[in-house]
Amino acid sequence: MDFAFDDKTLELTERLTAFLEERVYPAESRLELNADWSTPAVIRELRQEARARGLWNLFIELPNLQYAPLAELTGRSILLAPAALNCAAPDTGNMELLAQFGDEAQRERWLEPLLAGEIRSAFAMTEPEVASSDATNIETRIERVGDSYVVNGRKWYITGAMNPDCKVFIVMGQTDPQADVRHRQSMILVPRDTPGVTVKRAMTVFGYEDRDHGGHAEVLFEDVRVPAANLIGEPGSGFAIAQARLGPGRIHHCMRAIGVAERALELMCRRVGERTAFGKPLAAQGVVQDWIAESRVRIEQARLLVLKAAWLMDTVGNRGAHTEIQAIKIVVPQTVEWILDKAVQAHGAAGVSQDTPLAQLWAGLRTLRLADGPDEVHRRSLARRELAKYRK
Amino acid sequence: MDFAFDDKTLELTERLTAFLEERVYPAESRLELNADWSTPAVIRELRQEARARGLWNLFIELPNLQYAPLAELTGRSILLAPAALNCAAPDTGNMELLAQFGDEAQRERWLEPLLAGEIRSAFAMTEPEVASSDATNIETRIERVGDSYVVNGRKWYITGAMNPDCKVFIVMGQTDPQADVRHRQSMILVPRDTPGVTVKRAMTVFGYEDRDHGGHAEVLFEDVRVPAANLIGEPGSGFAIAQARLGPGRIHHCMRAIGVAERALELMCRRVGERTAFGKPLAAQGVVQDWIAESRVRIEQARLLVLKAAWLMDTVGNRGAHTEIQAIKIVVPQTVEWILDKAVQAHGAAGVSQDTPLAQLWAGLRTLRLADGPDEVHRRSLARRELAKYRK
Amino acid sequence: MDFAFDDKTLELTERLTAFLEERVYPAESRLELNADWSTPAVIRELRQEARARGLWNLFIELPNLQYAPLAELTGRSILLAPAALNCAAPDTGNMELLAQFGDEAQRERWLEPLLAGEIRSAFAMTEPEVASSDATNIETRIERVGDSYVVNGRKWYITGAMNPDCKVFIVMGQTDPQADVRHRQSMILVPRDTPGVTVKRAMTVFGYEDRDHGGHAEVLFEDVRVPAANLIGEPGSGFAIAQARLGPGRIHHCMRAIGVAERALELMCRRVGERTAFGKPLAAQGVVQDWIAESRVRIEQARLLVLKAAWLMDTVGNRGAHTEIQAIKIVVPQTVEWILDKAVQAHGAAGVSQDTPLAQLWAGLRTLRLADGPDEVHRRSLARRELAKYRK
Amino acid sequence: MDFAFDDKTLELTERLTAFLEERVYPAESRLELNADWSTPAVIRELRQEARARGLWNLFIELPNLQYAPLAELTGRSILLAPAALNCAAPDTGNMELLAQFGDEAQRERWLEPLLAGEIRSAFAMTEPEVASSDATNIETRIERVGDSYVVNGRKWYITGAMNPDCKVFIVMGQTDPQADVRHRQSMILVPRDTPGVTVKRAMTVFGYEDRDHGGHAEVLFEDVRVPAANLIGEPGSGFAIAQARLGPGRIHHCMRAIGVAERALELMCRRVGERTAFGKPLAAQGVVQDWIAESRVRIEQARLLVLKAAWLMDTVGNRGAHTEIQAIKIVVPQTVEWILDKAVQAHGAAGVSQDTPLAQLWAGLRTLRLADGPDEVHRRSLARRELAKYRK
Repeated sequence: MDFAFDDKTLELTERLTAFLEERVYPAESRLELNADWSTPAVIRELRQEARARGLWNLFIELPNLQYAPLAELTGRSILLAPAALNCAAPDTGNMELLAQFGDEAQRERWLEPLLAGEIRSAFAMTEPEVASSDATNIETRIERVGDSYVVNGRKWYITGAMNPDCKVFIVMGQTDPQADVRHRQSMILVPRDTPGVTVKRAMTVFGYEDRDHGGHAEVLFEDVRVPAANLIGEPGSGFAIAQARLGPGRIHHCMRAIGVAERALELMCRRVGERTAFGKPLAAQGVVQDWIAESRVRIEQARLLVLKAAWLMDTVGNRGAHTEIQAIKIVVPQTVEWILDKAVQAHGAAGVSQDTPLAQLWAGLRTLRLADGPDEVHRRSLARRELAKYRK
Repeated sequence: MDFAFDDKTLELTERLTAFLEERVYPAESRLELNADWSTPAVIRELRQEARARGLWNLFIELPNLQYAPLAELTGRSILLAPAALNCAAPDTGNMELLAQFGDEAQRERWLEPLLAGEIRSAFAMTEPEVASSDATNIETRIERVGDSYVVNGRKWYITGAMNPDCKVFIVMGQTDPQADVRHRQSMILVPRDTPGVTVKRAMTVFGYEDRDHGGHAEVLFEDVRVPAANLIGEPGSGFAIAQARLGPGRIHHCMRAIGVAERALELMCRRVGERTAFGKPLAAQGVVQDWIAESRVRIEQARLLVLKAAWLMDTVGNRGAHTEIQAIKIVVPQTVEWILDKAVQAHGAAGVSQDTPLAQLWAGLRTLRLADGPDEVHRRSLARRELAKYRK
Repeated sequence: MDFAFDDKTLELTERLTAFLEERVYPAESRLELNADWSTPAVIRELRQEARARGLWNLFIELPNLQYAPLAELTGRSILLAPAALNCAAPDTGNMELLAQFGDEAQRERWLEPLLAGEIRSAFAMTEPEVASSDATNIETRIERVGDSYVVNGRKWYITGAMNPDCKVFIVMGQTDPQADVRHRQSMILVPRDTPGVTVKRAMTVFGYEDRDHGGHAEVLFEDVRVPAANLIGEPGSGFAIAQARLGPGRIHHCMRAIGVAERALELMCRRVGERTAFGKPLAAQGVVQDWIAESRVRIEQARLLVLKAAWLMDTVGNRGAHTEIQAIKIVVPQTVEWILDKAVQAHGAAGVSQDTPLAQLWAGLRTLRLADGPDEVHRRSLARRELAKYRK
Repeated sequence: MDFAFDDKTLELTERLTAFLEERVYPAESRLELNADWSTPAVIRELRQEARARGLWNLFIELPNLQYAPLAELTGRSILLAPAALNCAAPDTGNMELLAQFGDEAQRERWLEPLLAGEIRSAFAMTEPEVASSDATNIETRIERVGDSYVVNGRKWYITGAMNPDCKVFIVMGQTDPQADVRHRQSMILVPRDTPGVTVKRAMTVFGYEDRDHGGHAEVLFEDVRVPAANLIGEPGSGFAIAQARLGPGRIHHCMRAIGVAERALELMCRRVGERTAFGKPLAAQGVVQDWIAESRVRIEQARLLVLKAAWLMDTVGNRGAHTEIQAIKIVVPQTVEWILDKAVQAHGAAGVSQDTPLAQLWAGLRTLRLADGPDEVHRRSLARRELAKYRK
């Protein structure tokens, strides 16, 4: 057992830190959103620079354990850095999915331009009408008609889909409603410009449109016809692919969230050192100190569990890391949300405003308690595995 | 001791409930916001109707104990009902302030049209540069120059000020920086159209503009000259007036917040009865039931404390109710925030979206943990009074 | 609605406070436990004095709303005062049960001496082998044989039963295992000296024997034969009687628990005023102040809910007060436990020791989260009633 | 970075597990306490066996990172296993102190027999009259008189001191009250049989005497005269030695506490699989599953932080591990206390009784939130270091 990072990780950490300090943090105040939801100019610039510095597609080039501390660092500037490195959700998960389950034609057509950063993508799973945390509830139909599949359904909270650069949706839906519950669903590639696809409206998250990374769209699929070759893997493999995709996606979210927490703690410490109330700096007040200590203790614990989950994924595979991935999916969002809440409180009105990043970060983290299945689903599943250890 | 409401309260409760069911709830989906921040048409309609039904200015006509259950009911539709009854913050607090501390001319000029619902008003206390929870920190200057006062300062989160109907600001600032700490500040009436007043921008609250009720503005006062007669009360009385204003304001917020909680609990119960995951309705799942029970228990407790505080204000005065007002200011926002969080979680993605009121309600409640002084200030003050009981 | 106590309550409060200050608090340090578990001498003395002062059997003489603040006061010295006033569990519940469901002979034989304070009693429901929170699980058999009933079963945590003055057990068991689930059980009076009754051992509660009030016994019933006339009410009425008994018992526990909390808060405030660490008194430290404020806020809320439940029991009956009784059963123990935990922490090692009452009080309160059904059962039941409001 | 244990650790883990399963767990029900507080026979037996199996004094033979998982395992049977391996507090800390700061004569006289398991020892620091978490408050006097020191003071909660095998006290007290605050205190060895030493009474912990490991004594030192050579290190070095001793002591407590948590979780899982209420096993109830998931997630996090602290102690020293040691001192006791609380609740009355180890374990863990300085002191200190990072 060894808690030291290896040399490569240290070197990349140093390089990424330099990039953040020289280019990313200074760019934060220059972020301007576009009326057409397209990628902001400042992000385009940073993408070029990151690529030039060899900080591109790290999520796919590195083992999880080496990627983890780098992903954490990008979380410190989460609106800019992950996109700058071509390491932003949902593209990362989609690229991994295509790399693992796409056939050669699919990889050539979609994975290549994604890796090159020429297009973006979306993952269309969640539906407004059903509890989508139970994937067997998904109602969208993907029907085979001759050489095509015809897609009908309504999806929402399709992250990134408002961005016109988002050229393709990976859609989950039922190909065989009569099959057993785990083989009903398939995934299919639907180009954005296919007739019948309507990006209907932008959903908000606690008032935020998240316009910087393409928002969260409601998307209608009405008699959308695509070639049968667009189906990913075998018909009926959608549930299994979803399971495979979500694990790595979750750990990426958690890695970045640790960086969010570190940034929030830094902002909180700086703020309370600057403000005075009732005759002493906020930093000298016991309750504020309590928040800071608790934040540090929680971050340290959460980070180690994320790193261990990453190590397990690298050494025994995603399946072997199942409990740990679920554990971080449960604990990291609530931990970081708690820290953000305290950082907001320490900032007073500024904390809930557009003048600090805290409120928007909070909204993002709060959503992670729901996205990819609410905590409650993961907690129940984890408990059952624990209980099974003692069943005779 | 008697926990039954009196006949008048019951009659008004019934009348208000009818108004809510017949007119307000159905109007919720018709709320449309105006580009110029002016009062939405649907609210204008409801105001006429409420007045016709004798549901107008109840906050000033009734003792607190009778008003409390009515204010709670308005909280059930908090974007519409308080405004409809001319019982919305910050106007209520401002009207009470003018009724109590304004001179005859001030009351005629400003209180009358406020009571008549012809104009709206704002309370300009919080400043971006200082911890405003400690009122002695307020830096805005109000200088006597001949027959005028000249106001210079920067305020923000001035609720309602984006609405062009908001015709007057009650501004807090230093008239005598050399005076002892509790006599430095005064309050002064500044008409919106006075030269030097700039409503600079709308501040957001977790991404929300709160455009329905006039938002939260940053307002600049640059060499703003108003007649000396605009000063409210004696020079140096600002701190005392603020104390007197904030108590009733806080209890109004708390009364309405109980209604918010009841609405959230109702939405949660309805939702979990409709959705099914993993083979059973959410309503049958133990963790969801736990949220519901906890919500009910917390609401019952919080409501009783609000009612007791109201009763104390009526019987022994605001000063005598100091501890209880502080107690509800501490406990009600956090309680209702907790319930809203669970209601959001039970709704999944819909809970964070614009399709339910929950996320916006959450943002409003979260802010109450900061507004009028963060919880921490009130907790410390309450603790000191408790400790003083045992000091020899 | 009126939050003032009536004159009678105020007079009794004053009289009881005088008794506590003059006789009970000074006696606390004189409490000596007897090797044979009999009532300590100091409690015997106080019982005489309480009776002389007209402070005897108040639980049965007063409506709940008048009794509540008095019961709270006895909670301030919970090892002595409830017993002194003949208002201690489980005798109070047993007396109420006999008054309501006992026939004339049963009342004469057992209720009279209990009211006179000549004997004590126990309530034998909980069994070690089953989850007794679900009363239908109770396995003890009560079989009719001729003119007798024969009792066989094992009970534990039978409070008071170690005290030799405890002359009678009210035993719950199955008279008809074939009957529907709510009519299987009956209650029967079993005199302590009946052959086949074995008081086997004293159960502990977090290390405490609770010897002052007769401890908590494991009791074996082996072929215990009692006259059929000892059955309380009709055969099969045990479940219904248990429901009727437990409601008032629960509110008594909660009333007293509020007094425990007040005492703990007083001890905490005094302690932190006396100790200094790192250059300032504990009372000046923010985290300690936070505990004190939170304690006060929680006590005020919990007390009001207890009082409202009492008022409902008096005005609409125990059934009408069901939700509120359940709510206080849920919230009061956890609230007071939380306060005791902080009081312990503020006392350092003294807090966990025998030199303050705090640790023992904590153990008692912790147990209330389990006794009469664990919180979880009550929460589920309360949630279901809430959900039923919205079921179509 | 590598989360795998090395071969030596794995081998020892296996050997220790075998010892626990073959000898220790079966012995738990045979633990009988002695009236004179001497070491129970079953512990004496196990000590012989552990030594024979090469499981002796592991705390001093192994680096912290190798010792950690073994110490955790001993926590699974915390009344027996640490003592069996001669790895129990306070002896471990005392042995390390003597090894590091004792001179040759002191090591020969006291360290040798401690390592051989022939005697036990106590650490006498805490005083009843002052907040001992601030070591500068310690009032016991150690005065130089000729060739001797004379000790006067009152100590309490001196763990192990009731056991007659406890032959020596390491006493902390003031040698120079005029010195600056960090050089007033010294430590001195006081043999138990020195005239003037009175072991006055056994202090309890939530009703427990902890008789198995020698309890917690109040000890009076009245004109106790010992040779000047008994002083450990230089006069005035007491504060520094205390700091050095407490770090390793704290991590040992935390390592074992993780084992306590694992045992509690196992007991909880087994119990809820066996009991049924309201028609389904407790294990199928959502709230219970929630406890289990939360327990697992918290244990995983806490363990990793303990391991990292151990690794830091081994690689950069106790000083470099200061933050992490403080972090685990804060988080581990509260985490394990929380898990024990849920395990108690899942067991119903059995959970608070002497029939499961849970209540006693709870009491021990609760005390760790106070021992070696209450959480609040450590939180404040940790916060200050965090804040110092951002101070200009």
